[in-house]
Amino acid sequence: MHASADLPTISQRELIGQPVEMLDTPCLVVDEEVLQANIQALQTFISGLGLKLRPHAKSHKCPDLAKHQLAAGAVGICCQKVSEAEAFAAQGIGDILIANEVVGSAKLQRLVRLHRRCIDLNGQLIVCVDSLEAAARMNQALEQAADDQGVAKAKSIAIAPLSIYLEINVGQNRCGIAPGRAAADLAKAIEEQMPRLCLIGLQAYHGAAQHMRTLEQRAAVVEEVCNKVRQTLQAFEAQGLKRPEVISGGGSGSVGLDARTGLFTELQAGSYVFMDVDYMRNQWDCTIDLNFSQSLFVLTTVMSQTSSDRAVVDAGLKALSVDSGLPELKDAPGLIYEKANDEHGLIQCRHSEHDPALEPESLLGKKLWLIPGHCDPTVNLYDELVVVRKGQVVNTWPVLARGRLF
Amino acid sequence: MHASADLPTISQRELIGQPVEMLDTPCLVVDEEVLQANIQALQTFISGLGLKLRPHAKSHKCPDLAKHQLAAGAVGICCQKVSEAEAFAAQGIGDILIANEVVGSAKLQRLVRLHRRCIDLNGQLIVCVDSLEAAARMNQALEQAADDQGVAKAKSIAIAPLSIYLEINVGQNRCGIAPGRAAADLAKAIEEQMPRLCLIGLQAYHGAAQHMRTLEQRAAVVEEVCNKVRQTLQAFEAQGLKRPEVISGGGSGSVGLDARTGLFTELQAGSYVFMDVDYMRNQWDCTIDLNFSQSLFVLTTVMSQTSSDRAVVDAGLKALSVDSGLPELKDAPGLIYEKANDEHGLIQCRHSEHDPALEPESLLGKKLWLIPGHCDPTVNLYDELVVVRKGQVVNTWPVLARGRLF
Repeated sequence: MHASADLPTISQRELIGQPVEMLDTPCLVVDEEVLQANIQALQTFISGLGLKLRPHAKSHKCPDLAKHQLAAGAVGICCQKVSEAEAFAAQGIGDILIANEVVGSAKLQRLVRLHRRCIDLNGQLIVCVDSLEAAARMNQALEQAADDQGVAKAKSIAIAPLSIYLEINVGQNRCGIAPGRAAADLAKAIEEQMPRLCLIGLQAYHGAAQHMRTLEQRAAVVEEVCNKVRQTLQAFEAQGLKRPEVISGGGSGSVGLDARTGLFTELQAGSYVFMDVDYMRNQWDCTIDLNFSQSLFVLTTVMSQTSSDRAVVDAGLKALSVDSGLPELKDAPGLIYEKANDEHGLIQCRHSEHDPALEPESLLGKKLWLIPGHCDPTVNLYDELVVVRKGQVVNTWPVLARGRLF
Repeated sequence: MHASADLPTISQRELIGQPVEMLDTPCLVVDEEVLQANIQALQTFISGLGLKLRPHAKSHKCPDLAKHQLAAGAVGICCQKVSEAEAFAAQGIGDILIANEVVGSAKLQRLVRLHRRCIDLNGQLIVCVDSLEAAARMNQALEQAADDQGVAKAKSIAIAPLSIYLEINVGQNRCGIAPGRAAADLAKAIEEQMPRLCLIGLQAYHGAAQHMRTLEQRAAVVEEVCNKVRQTLQAFEAQGLKRPEVISGGGSGSVGLDARTGLFTELQAGSYVFMDVDYMRNQWDCTIDLNFSQSLFVLTTVMSQTSSDRAVVDAGLKALSVDSGLPELKDAPGLIYEKANDEHGLIQCRHSEHDPALEPESLLGKKLWLIPGHCDPTVNLYDELVVVRKGQVVNTWPVLARGRLF
């Protein structure tokens, strides 16, 4: 992007091989062993049930990380925005579901280019649709692109149809057509009127279910989701439509349940690679839930301590997203992150619980490990993920899709 | 930074000269006329009192915008982080106060390099200090840099002393040495023991004061701040220290009061260029407060509407910082932004208040203007600020210090 070449780099790549204590802060750190264990745990579970894992890359926005998920057996990735997907395709990842609606002429033009790019990569682009109007505009953008290639090519439909999932409203009341008859009617209209679109699946994702605290609550929502999917499949049958080959959904909080419903064919969990304070607040049941561990941290430094009962760290609102609550400190008994200002974090120091290594006079300059309150928007604040193993910096991965909002 | 050259640009620079409706979304837009009016209003007010304005660039992180502030008469800028300041110095801006403590060996090395760079630019770097330990480490880093230049040069102190402001705790209980005697003792120790540091000012900033709702509340805090500054100046005198030439502080919420105290010589407001929903919640008193207007917006698109009482826009937590509350819609009666998810904003549609231009069936693809809840961390999510005038795109300014957290 503009002029960034004029700026001194802020990558810490030159610290590969050095101890983590050398890192400047605040920086975003991932524990490679925990990350790989999370990746393997979910893949083994999903594959063991004969299902497909298409992890959501909006959580990490990092092609290097996605490549580890694909190497472990993922069938592709999900993205949430066209420009985000472009960043992954630019790194050679070509099997992408944009698990979201795409509206607007500039975005549709990008979508068509990305569709071609994914075919060139021997992959496929899939996108969600939840209204006839949006489908019509998408179909038209594809028609237009075919026309632009000239009459001869257009006749042979030089551009392959774009695969779509019909997004149904499974109870979150956000995007998605109403399940059942309305969904089947929309599918039929698309089949009949939109030759450039090919409906291959249903999108049935319930975001709020991921953060419900008890297994009972999550199970109730998953059951509701399944009922809405079944209702839709029945309406498809009644309309004489063939059953969509893919039922896609599920997330890191509910995947243990989602995958066992016998209904989903493809799971979309994303945050499981990292986890966060909000996810840790879920009550996990090891008989059903998977045992993901915290791999993501913000390393921060105490930059001021002018009173024994408080310290100030260099990670505030621009280094941590606090929308789902404040970060927690790791391995720092007696210290509590109690407030985030724009550029500062306020740490309360409770002396009675204090670790001798963290005595007041020794805090200035001390590095502390924070567990982010909410992983996805926190990652979106950083240009680089520092990969560590056993206390050493082993790699840096650019967060290439950071800020890709279009 | 890494590999960004491999990615297609997401700048909208090619839309200069086009109507704003052409912009892809979500994007960050500034109304140039309102911005310039805000810049002029504060500069005229501060200059009229014979004081200096050193606007805080952490709000906009944008050298192009800072150049307008300097052209209007600002004496320099404030930054909050060393790497942020580097981004401005790289664009030729050399008079910078890092209005914050700088701790850690990597940061101190960068600080020394930046100090030299600012001198090369015929400017000066100033940094805040609030403890003897931090001052000693900074002094040592400067000594080390001088030594590295070789014995001959070191003897002549080739590097000019680094100017510092002593930050005093004016009541926010964040950073800052206690006012009065403790501050004077620290100043004396720095004068006597730290030849590479030159104390030229007091930093007396109270962040929380900016967001207090009534003028009475803000006036009470400003009075408290002034008492602490006076107490410190008296202690300086009692210690035989000369009065620091600069008393620096103030912010966009309290600047009308700060500037009239007769105590501050330099004001640091930042958010006044943009404003936000949180600032709009202050009760402004036109007899004292300045009349800043909203210049910053996030342009968003309705990407789904499957029910007449709600719509979904493409700006969620990654496009808006919600730490100080949700965004508000501009010129969209009957529409309320009621919830931010990671990638979606949920809009409630109240039909009774509905504008005919926003009837339910016409919302899909419609562009809406959002006023961010909190400007500073929202700007930090974007790579580019789109400048508009009378409905037309007139420029794009890269947010070059975005993500500069070190």
